Amino acid sequence: MIRVGVDAMGGDFAPENVILGAIEAYSNINTDALIVLVGDSEKITGVCRHYGFDSGNFVIKNATEQIGMGEHPVKAYIKKTDSSMHVGFKMLANNELDAFASAGNTGAMLTGSVYTLNPLPGIIRPCISAKMPLADGSDILILDVGFNADTKADVLYQFGIIGSIYAKTMMGIAKPRVALLNVGSEEEKGNMEVQEAYKIMKDTEEFDFVGNMEANNLFNGGIADVLVTDGFTGNVVLKQAEGMYALVSKLGVNHPFMNRFNYEFYGGTPVLGVSAAVVIGHGASTPLAIKNMILEAEQAAKNGLVGKLSQGAKIIKDE
Amino acid sequence: MIRVGVDAMGGDFAPENVILGAIEAYSNINTDALIVLVGDSEKITGVCRHYGFDSGNFVIKNATEQIGMGEHPVKAYIKKTDSSMHVGFKMLANNELDAFASAGNTGAMLTGSVYTLNPLPGIIRPCISAKMPLADGSDILILDVGFNADTKADVLYQFGIIGSIYAKTMMGIAKPRVALLNVGSEEEKGNMEVQEAYKIMKDTEEFDFVGNMEANNLFNGGIADVLVTDGFTGNVVLKQAEGMYALVSKLGVNHPFMNRFNYEFYGGTPVLGVSAAVVIGHGASTPLAIKNMILEAEQAAKNGLVGKLSQGAKIIKDE
Repeated sequence: MIRVGVDAMGGDFAPENVILGAIEAYSNINTDALIVLVGDSEKITGVCRHYGFDSGNFVIKNATEQIGMGEHPVKAYIKKTDSSMHVGFKMLANNELDAFASAGNTGAMLTGSVYTLNPLPGIIRPCISAKMPLADGSDILILDVGFNADTKADVLYQFGIIGSIYAKTMMGIAKPRVALLNVGSEEEKGNMEVQEAYKIMKDTEEFDFVGNMEANNLFNGGIADVLVTDGFTGNVVLKQAEGMYALVSKLGVNHPFMNRFNYEFYGGTPVLGVSAAVVIGHGASTPLAIKNMILEAEQAAKNGLVGKLSQGAKIIKDE
Repeated sequence: MIRVGVDAMGGDFAPENVILGAIEAYSNINTDALIVLVGDSEKITGVCRHYGFDSGNFVIKNATEQIGMGEHPVKAYIKKTDSSMHVGFKMLANNELDAFASAGNTGAMLTGSVYTLNPLPGIIRPCISAKMPLADGSDILILDVGFNADTKADVLYQFGIIGSIYAKTMMGIAKPRVALLNVGSEEEKGNMEVQEAYKIMKDTEEFDFVGNMEANNLFNGGIADVLVTDGFTGNVVLKQAEGMYALVSKLGVNHPFMNRFNYEFYGGTPVLGVSAAVVIGHGASTPLAIKNMILEAEQAAKNGLVGKLSQGAKIIKDE
């Protein structure tokens, strides 16, 4: 029985959208999985009742506080120990959950990931990742997309290992191709950390390094399954794609490829390299996005993603 | 009389496209401007003849060598002293030209900009810039887009001054708004250099600093006229936009906004912070792109861009 915790109070439209998403997830999730809603139990049951859904299909864990989207992440997380997010992380750390997902305050989710959970032994820096659609119909996993604004070469190398394991475990790719985001194809291109990372990666046997990738080839497909970058650049890349999608949608451009940029289909950003499965949803999550966030968390738990990353981290530690 | 030098042998489709672009520029350029084509004079006159254009409308400066697109930029530039590009830079340095433009080897153009020319006194690092279209119909100037992969905070600050002067001089904006590309709106966001740059910028009187900009707002308009970033991130942003435009064009998306991403309309990337006006064109330049590259170079010379940047550099030096 896989127990997926969901922060019922997290997100711009919580708890309503979260519960509607959980209801959608309920009918899509494996029968051996259980959705655990963490938050104000009265509000949760109230929303379920309002939509004619039996709240008995969920496990509800009461939490008296909640962390606002605009609160200072670290302060709020540490102070509000009975917030839905903090309670969820504690349950995860105590093995009362197999995964935890929230569309709440992103910074607070990152705080919980290292404050209540721990980095896996051997992992220098956990990271967050995101999938982007490619023209050939596949996706590319980009990491880091914002956990670490300053990223050293050895950390970039670890992201290659982490991304490769994620792609194998969650995307069903037998031998994921890992590229390094750079400003040119040649080895000597890029900033100092990227140049150094290339040197480490080119001889690695831990993953299939395919060299540098320039951003003009990002969406073409056929080059890589995993794209490694620092959390500053990765965040800019992700937000630029989001901004472009939002703008062309507003301008009325309606094309199947552009529509795949809709974050709702991806549902969430997994936190990789920490001691349990954590997924961060988009603050503005719709019920569809919440459903996919929950399914991503369930799959991570079911496929043993953390265990596999832990094995990968051991390799790093041994080197 | 403004003398605009053009590398007739630079670009994937040189000399043909360069000369066709120069012919187009000839009828668009001010009557008091002169186009000086640098390269193989026989080939240049041959192409002019082929298209029924009187080559006497240009000044032709013969150069016996040319730098290939795939050559090592620094080695090729230094070795090939009679290449069209090197000869153009020497004419510029000797005040035989008022501006020089080439769609040839970008790295070699950057080399020439600091090897034959010099950084303006006070400028720590010259940079290259690019304009991107915004939804409100205006453009935003982004710098650096690739000269400096590693950029310190004081250099980012200088980019603010340089970008502001460019926007005043070349884009006709009386009080350009300057933003810092970042991963959040708060002062403490970003990598170390960006955090430090924010601290310097927030109290400056040299330009109108409007704070951080996230990439999801990049194309919206209404926030900033100039966007400052390091050359690594800026290059990724520019190439991602190029890649997105190329892909959606291929997919048949045809929207006036997307069409404005066509680099041909922008024509070139000015090198800012060096002792003369230099514009780098896209390697794959069409005649339209070449025409606009030449007009950009002519405008830079006519508007006294280098002199104004030199004044700005003096302010920096005096601080």
